[in-house]
Amino acid sequence: MNRIQLDWQVGWSKEKYGQCERMLEASVPGAVQLDVAKAEGLPDYKYADHYKQYAWMEDVYWKYETTLDIPICKEGDKLFFVSKGIDYHFEIYLNHQKIFSQEGMFTPVELDMTGKAKSGDLLEIWLYPVPKRKGAEGRQQADQCCKPAVSYGWDWHPRLIPSGIWDDTYLEVRQASYIQHVEHHYDLDDTLTKAFLTFHITLSQPNKKVQLVLRDEKQQMIRKQEIMVKDKQVSIAMAVDNVKLWWPNGYGDPTLYGWELLLSDLEQISDRKKGKIGFRKVKLIMHEQAWEEPQNFPKSRSNPPITMEINHQTVFCIGTNWVNPEIFPGIITAETYHELVRLGYEAHMNMFRVWGGGIINKDVFYELCDAYGIMVWQEFPLSCNDYKSTPHYLDILEQEAVSIIKRLKKHPSLVLWCGGNELFNAWSGMTEQSHALRLLNAKCYELDRETPFLMTSPLSGMGHGHYLFQYNNDQDVLEAMIEADHTAYTEFGCPSPSTYDYLKTFIPAHELQTPIEGTAWEDHHAIGAWPVGGNDTWFLMETIKRYFGETISLHEMLEKGQLLQCIAYKGIYEEARRQKPRCSMALNWCYNEPWPTAANNSILNYPYEPKPAYYAVKDACRPVLASARIPKFSWHAHETLSFEIWVLNNSFGAIEAGSIRCYLQDEEKEVYLLTWEFHGIEPMMNRQGPTVRCNLADYEAGGLLHIKLIYEGHDAYSSCYDILMSKPRSPNRQGEKLLNQ
Amino acid sequence: MNRIQLDWQVGWSKEKYGQCERMLEASVPGAVQLDVAKAEGLPDYKYADHYKQYAWMEDVYWKYETTLDIPICKEGDKLFFVSKGIDYHFEIYLNHQKIFSQEGMFTPVELDMTGKAKSGDLLEIWLYPVPKRKGAEGRQQADQCCKPAVSYGWDWHPRLIPSGIWDDTYLEVRQASYIQHVEHHYDLDDTLTKAFLTFHITLSQPNKKVQLVLRDEKQQMIRKQEIMVKDKQVSIAMAVDNVKLWWPNGYGDPTLYGWELLLSDLEQISDRKKGKIGFRKVKLIMHEQAWEEPQNFPKSRSNPPITMEINHQTVFCIGTNWVNPEIFPGIITAETYHELVRLGYEAHMNMFRVWGGGIINKDVFYELCDAYGIMVWQEFPLSCNDYKSTPHYLDILEQEAVSIIKRLKKHPSLVLWCGGNELFNAWSGMTEQSHALRLLNAKCYELDRETPFLMTSPLSGMGHGHYLFQYNNDQDVLEAMIEADHTAYTEFGCPSPSTYDYLKTFIPAHELQTPIEGTAWEDHHAIGAWPVGGNDTWFLMETIKRYFGETISLHEMLEKGQLLQCIAYKGIYEEARRQKPRCSMALNWCYNEPWPTAANNSILNYPYEPKPAYYAVKDACRPVLASARIPKFSWHAHETLSFEIWVLNNSFGAIEAGSIRCYLQDEEKEVYLLTWEFHGIEPMMNRQGPTVRCNLADYEAGGLLHIKLIYEGHDAYSSCYDILMSKPRSPNRQGEKLLNQ
Repeated sequence: MNRIQLDWQVGWSKEKYGQCERMLEASVPGAVQLDVAKAEGLPDYKYADHYKQYAWMEDVYWKYETTLDIPICKEGDKLFFVSKGIDYHFEIYLNHQKIFSQEGMFTPVELDMTGKAKSGDLLEIWLYPVPKRKGAEGRQQADQCCKPAVSYGWDWHPRLIPSGIWDDTYLEVRQASYIQHVEHHYDLDDTLTKAFLTFHITLSQPNKKVQLVLRDEKQQMIRKQEIMVKDKQVSIAMAVDNVKLWWPNGYGDPTLYGWELLLSDLEQISDRKKGKIGFRKVKLIMHEQAWEEPQNFPKSRSNPPITMEINHQTVFCIGTNWVNPEIFPGIITAETYHELVRLGYEAHMNMFRVWGGGIINKDVFYELCDAYGIMVWQEFPLSCNDYKSTPHYLDILEQEAVSIIKRLKKHPSLVLWCGGNELFNAWSGMTEQSHALRLLNAKCYELDRETPFLMTSPLSGMGHGHYLFQYNNDQDVLEAMIEADHTAYTEFGCPSPSTYDYLKTFIPAHELQTPIEGTAWEDHHAIGAWPVGGNDTWFLMETIKRYFGETISLHEMLEKGQLLQCIAYKGIYEEARRQKPRCSMALNWCYNEPWPTAANNSILNYPYEPKPAYYAVKDACRPVLASARIPKFSWHAHETLSFEIWVLNNSFGAIEAGSIRCYLQDEEKEVYLLTWEFHGIEPMMNRQGPTVRCNLADYEAGGLLHIKLIYEGHDAYSSCYDILMSKPRSPNRQGEKLLNQ
Repeated sequence: MNRIQLDWQVGWSKEKYGQCERMLEASVPGAVQLDVAKAEGLPDYKYADHYKQYAWMEDVYWKYETTLDIPICKEGDKLFFVSKGIDYHFEIYLNHQKIFSQEGMFTPVELDMTGKAKSGDLLEIWLYPVPKRKGAEGRQQADQCCKPAVSYGWDWHPRLIPSGIWDDTYLEVRQASYIQHVEHHYDLDDTLTKAFLTFHITLSQPNKKVQLVLRDEKQQMIRKQEIMVKDKQVSIAMAVDNVKLWWPNGYGDPTLYGWELLLSDLEQISDRKKGKIGFRKVKLIMHEQAWEEPQNFPKSRSNPPITMEINHQTVFCIGTNWVNPEIFPGIITAETYHELVRLGYEAHMNMFRVWGGGIINKDVFYELCDAYGIMVWQEFPLSCNDYKSTPHYLDILEQEAVSIIKRLKKHPSLVLWCGGNELFNAWSGMTEQSHALRLLNAKCYELDRETPFLMTSPLSGMGHGHYLFQYNNDQDVLEAMIEADHTAYTEFGCPSPSTYDYLKTFIPAHELQTPIEGTAWEDHHAIGAWPVGGNDTWFLMETIKRYFGETISLHEMLEKGQLLQCIAYKGIYEEARRQKPRCSMALNWCYNEPWPTAANNSILNYPYEPKPAYYAVKDACRPVLASARIPKFSWHAHETLSFEIWVLNNSFGAIEAGSIRCYLQDEEKEVYLLTWEFHGIEPMMNRQGPTVRCNLADYEAGGLLHIKLIYEGHDAYSSCYDILMSKPRSPNRQGEKLLNQ
């Protein structure tokens, strides 16, 4: 098999198959926008409001073209044009003859060009303008297509809609006898020690010899099978004993076996394919006591299950919401994926929810999740819209869904399919009756029924939001979380502004000192991004000032904003863990971002730069830790500080008896409060300890206090929390009641 | 086409395909149990505990046999064996050669016997013993099959599990050229005035002439199309203008068009088929304001939609839960179906929920519902079990579901598919992840996506139960309903004992005076039927005595029990209607019963004898009525009686301004309370009137008072309600708090 990369040029026209004024060098995979920017000297879309200069590119037709240069092939060799993804609606022409058309960026293209194309021939790919439902505005323009809705503008994403060849695209020369398709499936027995593995193989020609080799995680061959294939299709079954299971991060090794398939023809190997397999069982189960609700008549139903069981063990899903790592998916590199997955792994995360507003990722992402033990909750490309069931939309959705399921179902990391984001909420308006979601359920059932399926998130019992430090009813996030009793927190967030050094890279110097509307601060979502938090989302300047004073400088504001984000995330993650087993998931909104924001709920800045909150989250996600349940952030001198001490345990290991010493520290002194001695703790169980109380009369208003929990003999389990000594008077604003209570 | 009925004999054997000791005359359709009973003189299963004598029949193999007597056929004629239903797992033998086998009673059998069978041949049908999951008891034995679970014993149904040929079964001689299959589909345009109708036809042979005739509801031909069919398959499309829509009872006429298909061969008609079509659009929508919930963060989802929209109009579904009208479905007659459907129609009902514990009905039931405008909520045969996803079960379920959907989807009355009964509650343990329910969604989507689908009832927001007059927390049913705020009451009940004359027909004289355990009272579900209500379900003797005194006679007890049932049903139906538009459905548990019960929640005694509650329900279901919202049944002399007056309107007609006079009546006097004059009321809208108050000091304890609402000028809208003047002291029991408050 021989891959031939192609040299592409790109141009645009106002008409379908029209004249292009000029042709520019194209990067493939990439995006037409980036090719134009490079060739025409457009300023970087990530800086200031320059993305606006790219807007016209939504509405023209694009042509990629290349003159074929095909090596001399052996008699009988086959020539294919292959693309793993072209975005979005396109037609392919060979010497001005249309040979193919497709709508949908997630369905790969494979065209047999044998005998049809020769060197010197012209291959063109014409792209339609980006799809927009007539009469719609913003993201609703995307509600009749399978393009990620986020590109049409979101509260952390500018409107910038990619077009172009976004994944690997090449010519491929194959011998006449090649492997057309391989798919594997396994059943694990009840003891989870024996796997019955079946490969379904389709060859281009019958009567060939196929060799299948299976290797363990150390690359040692453990099975080999050779077979003469009489038909084009064959299934090869093998049993694997003493199976080493694939486990999510924190619960065991994500063991992967390797397989290789060799196709021989006249004693020569004519084709080979290889891949990996992880053996695991996945199920969504009801949490303990779930069936006892509801109690009263007239009796409704119990909440739907959202507790994850892997290999017959209940696990706690701790992780994050993954968004597209680039505005232009064509330029996401393996390195970017690797850095992002590695950072999640290092932060003790075990689940990424791949949010339905963004793309379905490239293969390497899922391979990395397999290898790092990160469970993937994969959504289809539906988000915050009412995707109405027109026949055309349902056809495209079915095609794209089938392609997505077939491509991804082999990954052990893929533990959950989901129809899309927040579709059962007012701003979307879809329901169980929506044909799009019934279709997705049907296709997932048909093609991959062993993987659970949700129509959307949240379902009953699950919670999304809030995305602020202070809630509407004058609670802070710590108070609100203690009152919540959800089965899964699958989106929650608290924003912070970025650092000054980072802001400098995309906010012009003359705008940098004054975060106001109409500047790059707004373009980069620090201001007016979301209606609910007032005009100051995502910066939350008002909140920061309420806590730390009106006269706070910009530098201090950035720093305090980051502090609030750290406090919020630590509080939410740890409280969600305390609410186990009713609660079984904590996934913050969001992990990363596709361009530099001035303020965002993310814990990584673009492309993968940790914000302070990343380290706070990492702290809160440690499998074992000493944790303080602090009922609010801001305290007055006349109050008695009170908080509970807990040991949180998300590991399969038991915890030995131990003790935790507790101190209250300010800039001047460290006061010893108490020592909690506890008995051994069972695997996966938390332990609630004493409530600690302390008079605050001695502490000065305006400063931060630190609650330190020293876990004896295990420094790595110790924790520290900040609270604020509130000033006696604060301006008469929304936060007043909280601050003066 | 020529149908030949067969003379069957039936016998049994302890072994598969073993020797039958003797062969008895068989009624087909019917049940083996009834054939044995008749031939061997077993006592009627409906009397006393005689059903127990039928228990052994569960566990033997049954053989039906017939010697074929086939008329002389023309050259080229085809001979078929056809059965619309054989219950449950069976094999068919011709001259001792197995020619067919099937599991599943809802998939019809059609065997081409042409050239294979001749007169004098022996045709045998061997039935397996009834399916029972190993290790299971009671209804759980049915959790791996598609037999109705109710037969395995329920709180209103004895354990008596039918076997046998339960629907029409015959030989059929067809001309060589015949119509194999017809299916029709239509699209209504947005104005609902124009239908695009398509018939998909499969013929046994190509090159035939097909004529399609469409007639309106007055049998006038309105369309005719003739076509030469080149292939075996053809689609014929026709547009219908000025469509008269099919409407549910109370909202318009259930207009049905007629179609006929004629197949001609050499100028002679060789086959014909006909049927009916009703044009309507159906949708489940969110109720008004549904999207405003939930309000707080972390935000969960809104309740799923359960408001029925027919032809772009919101309707209120008022009706009942339909159970199998016979223990043995083979003996349900068209007359029984007709009486039951007619009684529902006359009681102003517009919906039957065909409960998943029972059978899928015979064709005539759905034809009657089409004709009477009764919407059918059809459940698949799953109820109160965890139907685990073994491959075998899923295969049978898929086969049966496909047969059921294909048979029923043509009926305009069929407005809702549902996976089964109470599957998301603790006693079942299924969830959205259950493969059986995902499969049913997929099949309904694939074959009939325009009809809404629920995985089960209740879903979130919907309510089932209670089934008692007094709730556990000392409320009566009137109080509990006023506190409830569900989106649909899809099962609610209150039982009553049967009348003395009726009881006499199945309770032996020596047991009749003393309703105690271990007598026919228990076998017929008056005692110990359901754990929650104490031992006295469904008679509720304790409740009756609490209200009416310990010394009450049996005759009085029967009468008072019926009174309480009337009060409960009237209260619930009318309160559900007041809770519109949040609430959109009121379906009581249950309508009918398959054998005589001593006490039951049903409003009809077997087979279709109205209980007093039938008339109370009929009263409460009137499209327009004066209604009193009475907060409880039992009152003390020191209390002030207070209740609201309403006009309830479930009609598309506006109501003119009018007035309602209100009286309180006891045996001695009638006291005028007030007159409410109201303005005109809009279609489908209720109107809340004044709260009426009245001192009760003058009324004597122990008697009933009647609240009379006289609707001026419309006697048919007037209503009357009973309340009880409670005795000052009652025994110190559970009901005390209520009675002495």
